[in-house]
Amino acid sequence: MPQALFAHGPHDLRLADVPADAPARGEVRIAMQRGGICGSDLHYYNHGGFGTVRLREPMILGHEVSGVIDAVGEGVGEGVEGLAIGDLVAVSPSRPCRTCDQCQRGLHNQCLNMRFYGSAMPFPHIQGAFRDTLIADASQCVPAKGLTAAQAAMAEPLAVALHAVGRAGDMLGKRVLVTGCGPIGILVILAARRAGAAEIIATDIAAPVLDIARTAGADITLNTADQPEALLPYTIYKGSLDVLFECSGAQAALVAGIGALRPRGQVIQLGLSGDMSLPMMQITAKELAIKGSFRFHEAFPLAVRMMQQGLIDVTPLLTHSYPLADFTDAFAMAGDRSQAMKVQLVFGA
Amino acid sequence: MPQALFAHGPHDLRLADVPADAPARGEVRIAMQRGGICGSDLHYYNHGGFGTVRLREPMILGHEVSGVIDAVGEGVGEGVEGLAIGDLVAVSPSRPCRTCDQCQRGLHNQCLNMRFYGSAMPFPHIQGAFRDTLIADASQCVPAKGLTAAQAAMAEPLAVALHAVGRAGDMLGKRVLVTGCGPIGILVILAARRAGAAEIIATDIAAPVLDIARTAGADITLNTADQPEALLPYTIYKGSLDVLFECSGAQAALVAGIGALRPRGQVIQLGLSGDMSLPMMQITAKELAIKGSFRFHEAFPLAVRMMQQGLIDVTPLLTHSYPLADFTDAFAMAGDRSQAMKVQLVFGA
Amino acid sequence: MPQALFAHGPHDLRLADVPADAPARGEVRIAMQRGGICGSDLHYYNHGGFGTVRLREPMILGHEVSGVIDAVGEGVGEGVEGLAIGDLVAVSPSRPCRTCDQCQRGLHNQCLNMRFYGSAMPFPHIQGAFRDTLIADASQCVPAKGLTAAQAAMAEPLAVALHAVGRAGDMLGKRVLVTGCGPIGILVILAARRAGAAEIIATDIAAPVLDIARTAGADITLNTADQPEALLPYTIYKGSLDVLFECSGAQAALVAGIGALRPRGQVIQLGLSGDMSLPMMQITAKELAIKGSFRFHEAFPLAVRMMQQGLIDVTPLLTHSYPLADFTDAFAMAGDRSQAMKVQLVFGA
Amino acid sequence: MPQALFAHGPHDLRLADVPADAPARGEVRIAMQRGGICGSDLHYYNHGGFGTVRLREPMILGHEVSGVIDAVGEGVGEGVEGLAIGDLVAVSPSRPCRTCDQCQRGLHNQCLNMRFYGSAMPFPHIQGAFRDTLIADASQCVPAKGLTAAQAAMAEPLAVALHAVGRAGDMLGKRVLVTGCGPIGILVILAARRAGAAEIIATDIAAPVLDIARTAGADITLNTADQPEALLPYTIYKGSLDVLFECSGAQAALVAGIGALRPRGQVIQLGLSGDMSLPMMQITAKELAIKGSFRFHEAFPLAVRMMQQGLIDVTPLLTHSYPLADFTDAFAMAGDRSQAMKVQLVFGA
Repeated sequence: MPQALFAHGPHDLRLADVPADAPARGEVRIAMQRGGICGSDLHYYNHGGFGTVRLREPMILGHEVSGVIDAVGEGVGEGVEGLAIGDLVAVSPSRPCRTCDQCQRGLHNQCLNMRFYGSAMPFPHIQGAFRDTLIADASQCVPAKGLTAAQAAMAEPLAVALHAVGRAGDMLGKRVLVTGCGPIGILVILAARRAGAAEIIATDIAAPVLDIARTAGADITLNTADQPEALLPYTIYKGSLDVLFECSGAQAALVAGIGALRPRGQVIQLGLSGDMSLPMMQITAKELAIKGSFRFHEAFPLAVRMMQQGLIDVTPLLTHSYPLADFTDAFAMAGDRSQAMKVQLVFGA
Repeated sequence: MPQALFAHGPHDLRLADVPADAPARGEVRIAMQRGGICGSDLHYYNHGGFGTVRLREPMILGHEVSGVIDAVGEGVGEGVEGLAIGDLVAVSPSRPCRTCDQCQRGLHNQCLNMRFYGSAMPFPHIQGAFRDTLIADASQCVPAKGLTAAQAAMAEPLAVALHAVGRAGDMLGKRVLVTGCGPIGILVILAARRAGAAEIIATDIAAPVLDIARTAGADITLNTADQPEALLPYTIYKGSLDVLFECSGAQAALVAGIGALRPRGQVIQLGLSGDMSLPMMQITAKELAIKGSFRFHEAFPLAVRMMQQGLIDVTPLLTHSYPLADFTDAFAMAGDRSQAMKVQLVFGA
Repeated sequence: MPQALFAHGPHDLRLADVPADAPARGEVRIAMQRGGICGSDLHYYNHGGFGTVRLREPMILGHEVSGVIDAVGEGVGEGVEGLAIGDLVAVSPSRPCRTCDQCQRGLHNQCLNMRFYGSAMPFPHIQGAFRDTLIADASQCVPAKGLTAAQAAMAEPLAVALHAVGRAGDMLGKRVLVTGCGPIGILVILAARRAGAAEIIATDIAAPVLDIARTAGADITLNTADQPEALLPYTIYKGSLDVLFECSGAQAALVAGIGALRPRGQVIQLGLSGDMSLPMMQITAKELAIKGSFRFHEAFPLAVRMMQQGLIDVTPLLTHSYPLADFTDAFAMAGDRSQAMKVQLVFGA
Repeated sequence: MPQALFAHGPHDLRLADVPADAPARGEVRIAMQRGGICGSDLHYYNHGGFGTVRLREPMILGHEVSGVIDAVGEGVGEGVEGLAIGDLVAVSPSRPCRTCDQCQRGLHNQCLNMRFYGSAMPFPHIQGAFRDTLIADASQCVPAKGLTAAQAAMAEPLAVALHAVGRAGDMLGKRVLVTGCGPIGILVILAARRAGAAEIIATDIAAPVLDIARTAGADITLNTADQPEALLPYTIYKGSLDVLFECSGAQAALVAGIGALRPRGQVIQLGLSGDMSLPMMQITAKELAIKGSFRFHEAFPLAVRMMQQGLIDVTPLLTHSYPLADFTDAFAMAGDRSQAMKVQLVFGA
């Protein structure tokens, strides 16, 4: 019997059986292969939620997933980009309604009726994808021929990074700062380099992740735990960097980065956080722009394509994998920045 | 003997004689007519500075000024846009170097060597323009034929407003919120309306300035002292307004406005302030952009032109004027929001 | 019995009876009031089509229309913006599918399955709206309270103009050239002025329309029939104007305008035409941008709103009206630029 | 005695002695190493000019050059980015005035007083850089440590390509068409790939250059001599490509490419040409943007940096080199697309 990983509350994960239904019209059934543990999964695991969002019923975690189609519903596979039994697919956790005002503006990531896997924001919660079998809408599946299942499961976080780089506009020749070298920070380094950044500086407070940042293409890495003033040289003449991708959610990182931005520089804020105290005088006087970046939409198929073409290589991030049954070890490792970058669960093992 | 108004420290303004020199090559001498008292003048008057900037020597205040040319240096008046004795001119307080990296990017308002009238940021301080006679660079003078001296002295704050509206990009058909209805807020209302805003909502905590906001063209005015939740109706469906021009420098106004912005909405921050605590989760998840706007450059001659063509009418703001000798009354009135909008000094009286 | 005006071929218009059906779910029935004759209607009338598009069956003309709701289908009037019997509405001729790739990008005017009133591009043709009674989708109706029926019928061409001005981006303080002062050119003058253009120069080869251009707010009008070199003064220093709205569809106008644009200037091409020979050396060396502008989408409700708020006044264009029965006179007048600007048919008379 | 290569008229190139002066304040003297032959050099060689520009006096050709500093004037080498004797430098042929209106807008490539090596547009002509020794302004020299002299001499055409890609804005994930695979087309392929293009299609009418296009990273190459309709599959659903970089200057290429662009797609026109007949109906109805791209400014130091960091590799283009004395062979080869991509002269040999 296929199983799924439910979060019941803080530090309370449990496997339970789930049915393997037949797909309805326009749907496919997927034998799941891989699922990456994301920071929000860790938040549900450690705290039972984040911000004001709390688990109010058991919820299957997981939204960075891939698998192989093992059944198709009516009408599937007849379109331009066919899906067939046996295909490896990256599964997008995002299902916008396509009809609300935001979708009609082209901002599907801002859909007013979004269904996003493994999210406790709406109630009933949207069940996630850490499970052996999954029924998904065909529109959520992107064929991932040529990729491994582990790579295909990276499409979601890579899409987040590509979307963020897109928010910054033209990147060619830009001088870029990335604060926070967790998986999203590393993927932003890869995406910004792919988009033509001339110089990439990465900061973190942990040495091991900075090593991976260098492997991923950062030109300069700075440990701001050891050298809190490391960005000072970049602040001369009102600042010298063009774009800051803030991936840490830490106020100190954002404030230090703002000082290093040149007039009209941009901050792209990805790291989710609570309120932060910002130096408004600097933001106003240097005419900076602080822009949020949230999830993705068109960037999901693009992420698959960029990996397929060899234009972005995510393998340096793939540090650990565990069978679904060993979820306790997997979540422990995912929370240990001294050892792990991206930890994936292996389904159907 | 011509006089000038020096700030020596908090609540210590003194008139003193200044010479009426002959203009050098490329310069003009101006018989000053009008000078508007700005918020930063009030800061020097009340606190001897703002933020970390402090008066370290006596400094002439004033940077919103107009006058009539009464002597010209060599080479003046030979260019395309001639200046001649007897011309009423709006005098820009801004003198960028035109050679630094920021000027060469076209961002003259970000000049690394800026000389801006009445500013204690550099030392020696840059002397201001509340004075009976002034030597200025010809490039700082914009002919203001057809305007009154009082209108011409509004070119500077109007330029600040036009620059801010320009920072928001295309304004045609936009739904706009203006928080803070001091002179800059009112001028932003005029400029946003001129630029095609379809709906303008203005907030403040004082009733009299909201009356002027309505006269200036605001469609809706909300007193947030009386109704702290006045913006709640605009927060539905993730928010409904396109642009917030934050002119109050008050954290509460910015935070309430952010809630009313729709996804991808923009904040243009004009109000100078210290650090503020911002709701980063909302900024990130709605993908807002918070952009600073600082001073102006090309907008100064544009401000003169817009007034000359009758496209923007600043007269509703011109509530009070005083002879230079009555500077004490003038500064007292300028600080009284229950009575005054823009208070101007009259020179050479 | 209600009637409609069918085009059967060149110079072959005929009135015929049409039924007054009951509206289905989500639809309304409209007692039509006014219908403006557009350039494309004249093309069908004079030539039986334009470009490669030809009438292949009788087609009702007309797409600039207004009327009063006289019956509503199920579900109508329950939404936020209610529609009720007796309401005057501006009727948008545009009905995008909302699901194709272009609609999902937010580009509804580029819909791959567009149904646009009075268009012979698809077959069967899309029937138009010069008729006494019309069944329309509720989503196509914008309440026009406070407007006359004649003004409401101007929403469509005004939307074309607003969309075009939006294509040019930030207009505040720009120097603008409008070539061709037919109804669209005049509406572009109104829209560009509303959006903050600092200077508007209008050209045409007919004196009467230039008079209306001045009334509409053009600062300078130039008759290029009398003075073919009228734009030469604007070509100094590589050119001095920011934006050209090309509304004539005439190659000579476009080429002359290109010479007057400054480096990085923009052409917004509205006038539909066949192939044109363009000075590519100038376009390349001055780094101009030639952008097409086609129809509208969000600009339709905006057009109604701008008229309702008194921000744009279209009355100077409303030169003639005729009862539907006098369609022959109406079409003759609509083609006479020496007398007419906008000619409207009056329905239900 | 050092020599230089003068064009006297069509097919009339002559070597002549030139002095090796000492550099003045702010200047350097350069022992020239390499000079690439560009399309405009070929035009002067074959036709004595292009368009309306004609040689009116003997002019030294050449503007894609590198060399080693062998003397420095006063004040050189004291700035942040020092220049010293012995340094290999890429020499920018572009010397804007930095004070005219265009320079002050940040558009130095549009300078009204531009001095660009080897240009017969102004009179006296601006002498070029195919010479053994050259006095240049220090500001024109970019240190090229780590590059070969041959690579350093590619900075200029690479800067043209980088500038063009910048004109298209955000490139990440875009589908790109490059028409014309001469050196500029190939460099655009390299630059667009570096900037994150997801798919690059290249067309030409010659097979050998298409081979180099593939080496440079084009995903698909199409020989439009053999298959004139090769782009037809991309025209479905109003077109499917995002950006066309037109590098051929051929009307047929531009027109075919326009058909393949999707709504709101962009053409970046680099290929200089005379007038062209364009399908304005398509441009208008699909709301395309045709943008010129001309030379470069900030992109020159960026080009050096991108090569130094290994982010762009120009070596596939470097097919031939000849000593200056063999200029006849060199120009013959440069004109032979069946064999040559970029031909360079070697100075001081």
